[in-house]
Amino acid sequence: MAVPDAVPNAVPKIRIDQGDLQDQKISSYRSPLGVTHTQTATIEDFTTESGFRFDQLEVSYQTLGTLSPARDNAILICHALSGDAHVAGTNPKTGRPGWWDYHVGPGKGIDTGKFFVICSNALGGCAGTTGPASARLDTGKPYGMSFPAITIRDMVAVQGRLIEQLGISRLFGVTGASMGGMQALAWAAEYPERVRVCVPLATCTSHSAMQIAFNEIGRRAIRSDPHWNQGNYYEGPRPSHGLAVARMVGHVTYLSAFSMTHKFGRKRQEPSVSRVEDAEMFAVESYLQHQGESFVKRFDPNSYLYLTRALDDFDLFDNGEVAEVVGRIRARFLVISFESDWLYPPTQSRELVRLLKRGNVAVTYINLDTPYGHDSFLIENPPFARVLGHYLDHEYRRINS
Amino acid sequence: MAVPDAVPNAVPKIRIDQGDLQDQKISSYRSPLGVTHTQTATIEDFTTESGFRFDQLEVSYQTLGTLSPARDNAILICHALSGDAHVAGTNPKTGRPGWWDYHVGPGKGIDTGKFFVICSNALGGCAGTTGPASARLDTGKPYGMSFPAITIRDMVAVQGRLIEQLGISRLFGVTGASMGGMQALAWAAEYPERVRVCVPLATCTSHSAMQIAFNEIGRRAIRSDPHWNQGNYYEGPRPSHGLAVARMVGHVTYLSAFSMTHKFGRKRQEPSVSRVEDAEMFAVESYLQHQGESFVKRFDPNSYLYLTRALDDFDLFDNGEVAEVVGRIRARFLVISFESDWLYPPTQSRELVRLLKRGNVAVTYINLDTPYGHDSFLIENPPFARVLGHYLDHEYRRINS
Repeated sequence: MAVPDAVPNAVPKIRIDQGDLQDQKISSYRSPLGVTHTQTATIEDFTTESGFRFDQLEVSYQTLGTLSPARDNAILICHALSGDAHVAGTNPKTGRPGWWDYHVGPGKGIDTGKFFVICSNALGGCAGTTGPASARLDTGKPYGMSFPAITIRDMVAVQGRLIEQLGISRLFGVTGASMGGMQALAWAAEYPERVRVCVPLATCTSHSAMQIAFNEIGRRAIRSDPHWNQGNYYEGPRPSHGLAVARMVGHVTYLSAFSMTHKFGRKRQEPSVSRVEDAEMFAVESYLQHQGESFVKRFDPNSYLYLTRALDDFDLFDNGEVAEVVGRIRARFLVISFESDWLYPPTQSRELVRLLKRGNVAVTYINLDTPYGHDSFLIENPPFARVLGHYLDHEYRRINS
Repeated sequence: MAVPDAVPNAVPKIRIDQGDLQDQKISSYRSPLGVTHTQTATIEDFTTESGFRFDQLEVSYQTLGTLSPARDNAILICHALSGDAHVAGTNPKTGRPGWWDYHVGPGKGIDTGKFFVICSNALGGCAGTTGPASARLDTGKPYGMSFPAITIRDMVAVQGRLIEQLGISRLFGVTGASMGGMQALAWAAEYPERVRVCVPLATCTSHSAMQIAFNEIGRRAIRSDPHWNQGNYYEGPRPSHGLAVARMVGHVTYLSAFSMTHKFGRKRQEPSVSRVEDAEMFAVESYLQHQGESFVKRFDPNSYLYLTRALDDFDLFDNGEVAEVVGRIRARFLVISFESDWLYPPTQSRELVRLLKRGNVAVTYINLDTPYGHDSFLIENPPFARVLGHYLDHEYRRINS
C-alpha cells in the first residue's frame, strides 16, 4: 500500500489527462479552426550575431485570423524548444491540433476573431525554417555542425524580417513561453517601436545554472550517442537514443511532482518495449519512453543542440546595463508565471517584473496557482486563458480609444 | 549582466565549496581517523525475496570505534546509491576520505569515541559486496543481467547476517539517507527487536512518480548505450557514456537551484573536453561532465540498474496494512529532512512522521533549513551534526540509565 504524496488542497478543475496537445494521445479534442496550413517565406541576405551570412533563409509560418485595415492587430506567437509554426488548427499532415490550440482560436485566450496571429518556426529549428538539417546552398548537403551558432536575438531578427514581408510595421503583441518568452523579451528590448504589448510566460532573462545543467545533460546524451557522429548522421542512422534521453529529461522538468503523482502515481503496466532486467514497469517509465520515442520522429538532434545552446546563452542584459536595456522598452507587459513551475520558477518572473517596474515599464504580473509545472501554459487552463484574453482585449481597446 | 537568482536571506555558514567528499577535489580536508580499512565477510546460503539462492555472498564492510562490553553501542550506517562501505577515514587505495567523514569520527555527529560504527556495501553494489559484476561460482564469469532482482529488504537481510557474524544481536541504531534511509526503515519494520533507534534521513516510504522518472532516465541512458550489450560488457568497452549521463541526471537532482547558482551561476570556462558546437562552456557544464566521467571509473553500470530498480520498487507498506507495519515497530525515531531537498522533499518525511505518530511510535522530526538540496546530508553541516549527535547521545544515555 503506497503512501500518497502530499497534494494541494484545492486542485483547479483542469483536465490534466488531456495534457500537451503535441505529445499526448488526444482522442476527443477537435480544433474549432478546422484544418490550417503553414506557408514558407524566403528571406535574403541574413547575417547572424556570430557574423555568419546566409544568402537565403526559409521560414515556415502560419497566420490565423484577419489583419485589420489599420494593420494594428497582429500578435506574434513565439514557440518553445519543441514547438513549431503550426500553433493552432488541425495539421493536415498529422491530423493533430496545433501545440497551442487550447489558447489560440475563436473566442480563446488569443482570439483569432479579433487578432491576426502569426507563428513562425524558429531559426535553427527543424520544422520548415532553415536549421542544421537544411541543405546548404553551396553543397546541397545538410549544414550539420557547420550551421552557425545562433542566438535568441537572431531568431527575433528573422521574425522581424518575416513581419516586414507580411506588411506589418508594428506588432500589437508578442508572446511565448520559456524559449518563446525569451524571444518576446528580446523583441521588446531590440525593437521597442515595433511592439505594443509583450506577454512573456514562464520565462526568465537568463538561464540559471540548474536550467543550463538540465540542457547540458540532454546535449551530452545526444553527443555521446555514437550515431551522432559529430553531427553528420543525415545519411545514416540518427542519434535517436540520445535525443530520446534528452527529451525524457526535458519532459520531467516540464511537469510537477504533483502532476506526475496525479497522472501515474506508482501504477504498473506491461512494458511497451522488452526489457532484460524485469517484466513489469511503472506507468511513468512507459510514458517517458513513449515521449522519448515519439519526439525522435519529429525533431532533429542537431536542432536540439543549437536551440538549447541559444537558450542557455541568452541574457537579456548582456548588451547593456539593466537600466539602459529596460529604458529602451516601450511595450506594456503582462508577465505570467506558474507556482508549480520549478524549471522556470516564479522567482525568475518576479525578478523580471522588479527590473521592469524599476525602469517605469507598465507591468501586470500574475502568478497562477496551476499545479502542473512548466507545462501549465500548454494545457487546457481556463484561468490562464481568461487572464490572457482580458489583458489583450483591454490593451487593444486602450490603443483604439 | 546576469540577473542573480533569488537566494535565501540567511544562508547558514556551510562550506559548500568542499561539497561531497567522494566527488569533489578536496585539497585541504584530512580525516581525523587516519587511514581506515574495509574487510570482507562471507555469507553462506542466502535467498533473495525473488527466490534466487546464493550459495555464497561476499560483503565488504568497515567498522570504526569499539564495541562496548554490553555490545549495545553498535550503529549501522546504510549508504545511498553511489556510496560504499568506506564511510570514514582515509581510504588507503584512493587517499580520499570516506563519503561521510564530515559526520562520522571522534566527536562528530556519529561519535566513534562512543559508538561502534558498521557500514557495509549494499547487496547488488560494486564495491566489494556481491553484485552483477561479481563472478558466478558456477561459471567464473560475471553475473551481468543473470543477477537476480534484489530489494531493499534483501540488502537489509544481508546486513542482518553480517551483524550476527559480528556477534551483535541488537543494534543501538541504524541510519542512512535516501536508499540508506529506506534500509533504515526496512530494518525497523522487519527486525523490530534488533533496532533501538532508527534515523532515516532525506528519504521516503516509497518513490513518487517523479523519483522513479529520474531513475528511469538514468537506466534508459545506460541501456541505450550500445556498449551495454544487454549487460554483457565485462570483457569489452563499458557503457560509460550512458552511465555518465545517468550520473549527471542524479547529480543535478541532488543539488538545489540555490547551490548551483551559488557554486556556478553563469560562469564560463574553457571546456575540459573538445566540443564541436562552440569553444566556451558554462562552469556547471564542465562540472557535470567531470562528475559523470569520474563516476564511470568507480561504478558498475549494471549495479546502477539493479540498485535504482530496488529503490523504485521499495514500498515500506507493500507487505501489510500501514497500521500493521507501523504496529510492529519497536524503535524510536529521529527523522530529518532538508527544506531545499526537492528529490526527497520534506513532504515525504512529514508523511512518514504522521504515520509513525499515528501508530504511537516515538518520533522526533526536524526539517533543517540547509539550502543545498538532497546533498545537505553529505556536506559539512554543523546544525545537522549537532542534531544527530545530541539525539544519539540522549537515547544512548536513556537506555543506560
